[in-house]
Amino acid sequence: MKQRVKTGPIFTDLYELTMAQCYFSAKITGEATFSLFVRGYPENRNYYVMAGLEEAFAEVLDYTFSSEDLAYLKKTNLFTRDFLDYLETFRFTGTVRCMPEGSLFFADEPVMEVSAPIMESQVLETFLINAIGFSSLIATKAARCVKAAKGRGLVDFSLRRNQGSDAGLKVARSSYIAGFAATSNVLAGKIYDIPVSGTMAHSFVSLFEDEHDAFRVFAENYPDNTVLLIDTHDTIEGAKNAASIGIEMQQRGEQLRGVRLDSGDMAQLSKDVRQILNDAGLTETKIFASSGFDEYKIARVLDNNALIDAFGVGTKLGVSADAPYLDMVYKLVRFKDRDITKQSPGKAYLAGEKQVFRKTDEGGKYLADIIGRKDETFKNTIPMLQTMIEKGTLMVEMPDLEEIRKYFTACFSKLDETYKAIDSTARYPVSVSDDLKEIQKRIAGQIL
Amino acid sequence: MKQRVKTGPIFTDLYELTMAQCYFSAKITGEATFSLFVRGYPENRNYYVMAGLEEAFAEVLDYTFSSEDLAYLKKTNLFTRDFLDYLETFRFTGTVRCMPEGSLFFADEPVMEVSAPIMESQVLETFLINAIGFSSLIATKAARCVKAAKGRGLVDFSLRRNQGSDAGLKVARSSYIAGFAATSNVLAGKIYDIPVSGTMAHSFVSLFEDEHDAFRVFAENYPDNTVLLIDTHDTIEGAKNAASIGIEMQQRGEQLRGVRLDSGDMAQLSKDVRQILNDAGLTETKIFASSGFDEYKIARVLDNNALIDAFGVGTKLGVSADAPYLDMVYKLVRFKDRDITKQSPGKAYLAGEKQVFRKTDEGGKYLADIIGRKDETFKNTIPMLQTMIEKGTLMVEMPDLEEIRKYFTACFSKLDETYKAIDSTARYPVSVSDDLKEIQKRIAGQIL
Repeated sequence: MKQRVKTGPIFTDLYELTMAQCYFSAKITGEATFSLFVRGYPENRNYYVMAGLEEAFAEVLDYTFSSEDLAYLKKTNLFTRDFLDYLETFRFTGTVRCMPEGSLFFADEPVMEVSAPIMESQVLETFLINAIGFSSLIATKAARCVKAAKGRGLVDFSLRRNQGSDAGLKVARSSYIAGFAATSNVLAGKIYDIPVSGTMAHSFVSLFEDEHDAFRVFAENYPDNTVLLIDTHDTIEGAKNAASIGIEMQQRGEQLRGVRLDSGDMAQLSKDVRQILNDAGLTETKIFASSGFDEYKIARVLDNNALIDAFGVGTKLGVSADAPYLDMVYKLVRFKDRDITKQSPGKAYLAGEKQVFRKTDEGGKYLADIIGRKDETFKNTIPMLQTMIEKGTLMVEMPDLEEIRKYFTACFSKLDETYKAIDSTARYPVSVSDDLKEIQKRIAGQIL
Repeated sequence: MKQRVKTGPIFTDLYELTMAQCYFSAKITGEATFSLFVRGYPENRNYYVMAGLEEAFAEVLDYTFSSEDLAYLKKTNLFTRDFLDYLETFRFTGTVRCMPEGSLFFADEPVMEVSAPIMESQVLETFLINAIGFSSLIATKAARCVKAAKGRGLVDFSLRRNQGSDAGLKVARSSYIAGFAATSNVLAGKIYDIPVSGTMAHSFVSLFEDEHDAFRVFAENYPDNTVLLIDTHDTIEGAKNAASIGIEMQQRGEQLRGVRLDSGDMAQLSKDVRQILNDAGLTETKIFASSGFDEYKIARVLDNNALIDAFGVGTKLGVSADAPYLDMVYKLVRFKDRDITKQSPGKAYLAGEKQVFRKTDEGGKYLADIIGRKDETFKNTIPMLQTMIEKGTLMVEMPDLEEIRKYFTACFSKLDETYKAIDSTARYPVSVSDDLKEIQKRIAGQIL
């Protein structure tokens, strides 16, 4: 399992620790189960892609307070000495059942359930939502881009606009899971072994008084890997200059790999530039486009028959601009022998330990999901939550990133196209089992 | 200077390094100046708050490639051995002129200019936009919340929905600069010495069969610092239960610090709850509100005369939901003795090394800005860009976070209210000096 710098257990909301202090003092130690799920859908979303598990587990399996953490907590004067002593030996000893990374999931379905003594299960809340919520948000956005690109290559160009450094890593990893070909983020390349890719900046072209010189210097350094940015002065002139460099490269037995468009009417420019390249005999030279792309702009330029072979997708992917957060929550569903929900307006949720059963047809296509009790069984369904951590120990071999990527692709191919259209409002059918409904009725009855 | 985990120089787009390889091979070493600025405004923005400098400088002043980084770069087969040897000794040796953290700045004004040999100034692009862009985005969003709250306290509750762990730290720090009172993020509290704050989760209340028991346990543990979450079952009943606990506390000589509303009609509920608390003699107990707040919702509930003393501001602050990125760019404006811009449609910018001159009235109020040449002078103006790094060395004493926070408050008080209204479309006047215009004309003339 690849590890980045860990954040540790004080990467959390203060109340997770003050509540734990209360449980500790009151000697409340019973087992509690929490469900992690997303409420509803933002506009234009119909499915979610699970991501972020590897990092989440790296923390959970080694959730220990450092002496620095404890010194800081002591300084706040919010915790008793006995409690701080307890934290010193704190470990997560519980069970985690969850969907594998790359799985598709739907609104209100638990993607993870954590069962452990209340202090251990409660304290994970903030971290798990942060880690899995954001990675899943981006994997979902990236899957939408992949769908819109209809087989064309996509590269994550978002690093400069990501919300901080950790987001940069998570976006590179999550978009790779969803089928992106590469990232521009070198650190992500190093940590996750994702292919890295890049072209050149406008500054590179501007720095030379003649665009030819800029192109020539780059081509001499990267005979196998030159993609020329052609819009610094004028895209059509830039394409002609690139073509002349491409011809020079051909004469040396090399090939100009591509040109990049970064402004203007992409569909029209792509056709004009394709013509210029073809006229120069550079039929193998690809056209790469960037600048404000997301699933909507990709779909739009392809609808206009753009001759673009690959897209650099930046800012709008990297912050999931049209839906920059998921309403992911982590809710107490059972404490000891009691199933639990709450009644706040608009904030009720399904009590009880659960399983998600996915019905498939003979070919494996997803038909519908049933959210049921943990111990139910349904014919011709796949139980989506797997026990991955038991008694604080990892019970499964974690797949590597390439396997996760393949698993996502396989899952995505099983989802009906109806739900994958980027502007679809169709809802994949998810129902609640009779047994689980019974639990909800029982709790409502107790309250009335 | 407080340091977090550093990202190092390969936290960058690949092209920064491949361009550097080209400059290295072609022996292009001249001094280049880049300007960092934001193009235009997202909807409902009229000013920006500069933040993120401390972290940016921590990197720039120690911008060294580790042996692991170099081993990875070697493995990509994109770099020559000579170039990798050069990177081994790489240091930033240039000059950084910039606005102090907490400054207000406006669209198209440079907030920073970096002058250094081209390889050194170019390679900082991705990192600087990432670090300063996001921190400034959040400081700006937070300033808007502070303005809307009209003196009421604000606490950053966004950690779980932040885009990754680094965003969590940056949001806590940036919102504190803009005047937030505290954060729920314990790690940010430890690293930045920001006050930490928190109440309790619904799970805490749900776990007890009787709400009184939950409240009582908490109050016993935190006699000086209890804020009871009262909406788990029913806000009005919760308020009554909280009042009875408040009375118990009074009898022990303690005081119930507050209650928290987290759902429903906040303005109406706050009045009803205030009445319940006052009737119980708990006039000093504060009402705290959370759930979907941002500057717009804060303004709305206060317009409806909500009796809310403080707000927890979460998701929508933490991702700057209505404008989740700034169009911040880092553009080559001068190379050796040549001023530079580019002509791509919609992407032109001001060539030349610049200074931002802020005109003030006798009382210090900001009247207008002039973007001029670096070496110009204007009477009754403050030059906003200060030389902070020279020959790779920090030349100024960096202010601590409390000083930055005070500086922001002072700056904000100097900006006319016209521009601070959260739905204002007024534009603070920013002009370009005649000398700087002359440079632009000269370049345009050269191109024509």
